[in-house]
Amino acid sequence: MSIGRRLIVVSNRGPVGYGRDEDGRRVVRRGGGGLVTALRPLVSRHDVTWVASAMSDEERTIAASGPIEETATDGSRYRLRLVAHDPGAYELFYNVAANPALWFVQHGLWELKRDPNADLTLPWNAGYRAVNENFAQAVVAELERDPEAAVLFQDYHLYLAPRLVRERVPDALLGHFVHIPWVGPWAWRVLPEESVRAIHDGLLANDVLGFHTNRWRDAFLESAAAYLGPDAARRTLVSASPISVDPAEFEELAWDETVLERERELLVARPELLVLRVDRTDPAKNAVRGFHSFGRLLERRSDLHGRVGMLALLDPSRQEIPEYAGYRNALEATALSVNERFALPGWTPIDLRIRDDLPSSIAAYKQFDVLMANSVMDGLNLVVKEAPLVNERDGVVVLSHDAGAIDELRAWVVPVDPHDVEQQADALEQALELPLPQRRAWLAAIRAHVRAHDVDEWVTGQLAALERASTMRS
Amino acid sequence: MSIGRRLIVVSNRGPVGYGRDEDGRRVVRRGGGGLVTALRPLVSRHDVTWVASAMSDEERTIAASGPIEETATDGSRYRLRLVAHDPGAYELFYNVAANPALWFVQHGLWELKRDPNADLTLPWNAGYRAVNENFAQAVVAELERDPEAAVLFQDYHLYLAPRLVRERVPDALLGHFVHIPWVGPWAWRVLPEESVRAIHDGLLANDVLGFHTNRWRDAFLESAAAYLGPDAARRTLVSASPISVDPAEFEELAWDETVLERERELLVARPELLVLRVDRTDPAKNAVRGFHSFGRLLERRSDLHGRVGMLALLDPSRQEIPEYAGYRNALEATALSVNERFALPGWTPIDLRIRDDLPSSIAAYKQFDVLMANSVMDGLNLVVKEAPLVNERDGVVVLSHDAGAIDELRAWVVPVDPHDVEQQADALEQALELPLPQRRAWLAAIRAHVRAHDVDEWVTGQLAALERASTMRS
Repeated sequence: MSIGRRLIVVSNRGPVGYGRDEDGRRVVRRGGGGLVTALRPLVSRHDVTWVASAMSDEERTIAASGPIEETATDGSRYRLRLVAHDPGAYELFYNVAANPALWFVQHGLWELKRDPNADLTLPWNAGYRAVNENFAQAVVAELERDPEAAVLFQDYHLYLAPRLVRERVPDALLGHFVHIPWVGPWAWRVLPEESVRAIHDGLLANDVLGFHTNRWRDAFLESAAAYLGPDAARRTLVSASPISVDPAEFEELAWDETVLERERELLVARPELLVLRVDRTDPAKNAVRGFHSFGRLLERRSDLHGRVGMLALLDPSRQEIPEYAGYRNALEATALSVNERFALPGWTPIDLRIRDDLPSSIAAYKQFDVLMANSVMDGLNLVVKEAPLVNERDGVVVLSHDAGAIDELRAWVVPVDPHDVEQQADALEQALELPLPQRRAWLAAIRAHVRAHDVDEWVTGQLAALERASTMRS
Repeated sequence: MSIGRRLIVVSNRGPVGYGRDEDGRRVVRRGGGGLVTALRPLVSRHDVTWVASAMSDEERTIAASGPIEETATDGSRYRLRLVAHDPGAYELFYNVAANPALWFVQHGLWELKRDPNADLTLPWNAGYRAVNENFAQAVVAELERDPEAAVLFQDYHLYLAPRLVRERVPDALLGHFVHIPWVGPWAWRVLPEESVRAIHDGLLANDVLGFHTNRWRDAFLESAAAYLGPDAARRTLVSASPISVDPAEFEELAWDETVLERERELLVARPELLVLRVDRTDPAKNAVRGFHSFGRLLERRSDLHGRVGMLALLDPSRQEIPEYAGYRNALEATALSVNERFALPGWTPIDLRIRDDLPSSIAAYKQFDVLMANSVMDGLNLVVKEAPLVNERDGVVVLSHDAGAIDELRAWVVPVDPHDVEQQADALEQALELPLPQRRAWLAAIRAHVRAHDVDEWVTGQLAALERASTMRS
């Protein structure tokens, strides 16, 4: 499906980054983030203007001279409008209000309440609100150019912008997709009530609002009713549709030269049974409890010593935020303590690698026997959709019951309670010993599901919802 | 109202404590806790057996030789059955599972999720469950003696005991009162699911279950439905009735010799305008943010320098738990930093006194101009019922919108958002400047309300609910 309407995609991080090389020439870096990858089909098939934050000096220079034309990797052209912010405001917006505050609240990790000195007033007003105002102005300028364009806001950085746009362009067609979990009214009580109301009010200025699963959507409807009254969500089409991946991309990547080289390296060193996790070093991903549960497994099962290994490929994440730096320390300390306790000559139980290394991840996707994703909460979790596509070992997925993807994959995974280390050890044991016919059937079922419900389907659904909202209004 | 039925009151802490003096003679200390005070009318008017933990060596000795007869301060006799626990189990029960885990979860303060190493399995099984089993055995022994007795479980230490009793004595008449907040299903997700289900299942083994306010009761019904299914609470009468105080006791205490002496000392040093808080040094009481808001008030209003003072009388609380020790440090550091910034010769803005000192608290109740209770959450908050009874300065109450008492007192207090320091400074300003007629009317209204709804009313209601449940069953 393709629509003629021009699209204004709005996200904090843009699809490309700009800098200068040593000789002072402008260089372009393609962004890797999951959101940008997911939205790629939009750019290929539609007339897109992308609005994103200017982050580097070079990007601020570009922002000052107005929107530019860019070319995507597949050759499609799109417009890029970079929005410059006051650096102090951006710091408060990004490193205090959006991360960790909103991210942690929406993953049930918030400790504002516990931190006796925490006060969100300044970062909220001088940071989050200010940056959203900048985005709103950029979107309004784009809508002045083409009032028929549809706006697609992305994620938790931009909760206030839709209301600010709606106030100035009452007839704008606005959509928003929240890529992280939503939590019920009780979990929102850790923020000042005024901010929580503004968040809900901002999102409900959209014509269409999307979440990955019914559980996040229902939580939103519940919290919106609690904070803004029972009719608050009346004018917005609030829907659930899980994002997905492009299966062809992963099937191709599996045969990439670098991936094959990493796979050869992995095969030389691999244990008989490989338990894999591929995450960011984010507290929400819960790798430390995962390591503890692997330690519990080794405590119970001395017959597995020397035979099973956990490979943890973790992309370093948000290290400028103290909570994340502390979490990285806990990761390293926990892996070390399990290894010190159980290691044998020639066998290290946990192989922890903290770096950004996509080829190694794809190689490991092919080789795992058990894939563990025990997030405390997870908007969806794309790893459990990606890895089975290319796995060659009849690998079993162990998946948190608080990850959005469980709603799609429940029948074909071993579920885990992310707060129960014992139960996670049970699940690892069960996954390692699952009979072959069941492993094969589960893996095949996950693959078929992901192929049938790919990212194109998701994009098509987003645009159809916007058209539906537009029709209903007129 | 009085019923002939014998009552078995079950609470972790009993009404008296036993030790040995230097000469090896048994000494009795009367307990001071709010719960014990509240239940005093029960002992005066009913045939009561109190079941409580043996905490000292002396108490363990008493426990070994069976129930004893005791005399309350008013001369009433009651039976006391002390329950001895394995000291290791009691440590895990009290200092890990009940505090901080359950207390923090039920005040939205839980950081289990954030603490990557936290695992409740051991303290839950070896501590909380074990201690509840001991209590259940003691109650069953009492019920064997008198099968018609009604059992009144108290508070968050004993969530599992009712089910254990019900399994062994199916026809027992069981009631439970939860004195702290209840939180919705989203807030319970930080504990292992199995424990959360056991908590709800345990409470629903009671015939009658009470909370202080509708908001906690509704949250319970919501979380019970989420964890145990929509019909889970069908067989239990779940009600809301706020506990209260004995007004005569405070009106009498106001003229106690020691209180009058403390009042004279206070009058010598008191600032023109006295802002008071009387709390425990508990993170749930939120005194640190209260100090910050007082600092913000002084920033805004230089005309108040030298004229307004905050007196914080804080009872030291649970110092063996690291979070509480850390919170005490934060209290002292914050008061110090406000004082260092604003103090003038002869004027210290915040007078922080950390000690257990009831006479000083009563003296300060008489003298406050503004009483601040900005708890992040609070089952009820008795201070805001006690202090107005004896206040002589037309004092104004500033009360958290997440304290249970707000549901009764909303019309006569200045409400505060406990997470919004700016708004708390607004509230202090508003309270200090409230016109005299309004101050008088509000204070009079609070007094009239507390006198009309005293602790006797609460006790009567609890027993009536049990009789109703008993009648409905037969």
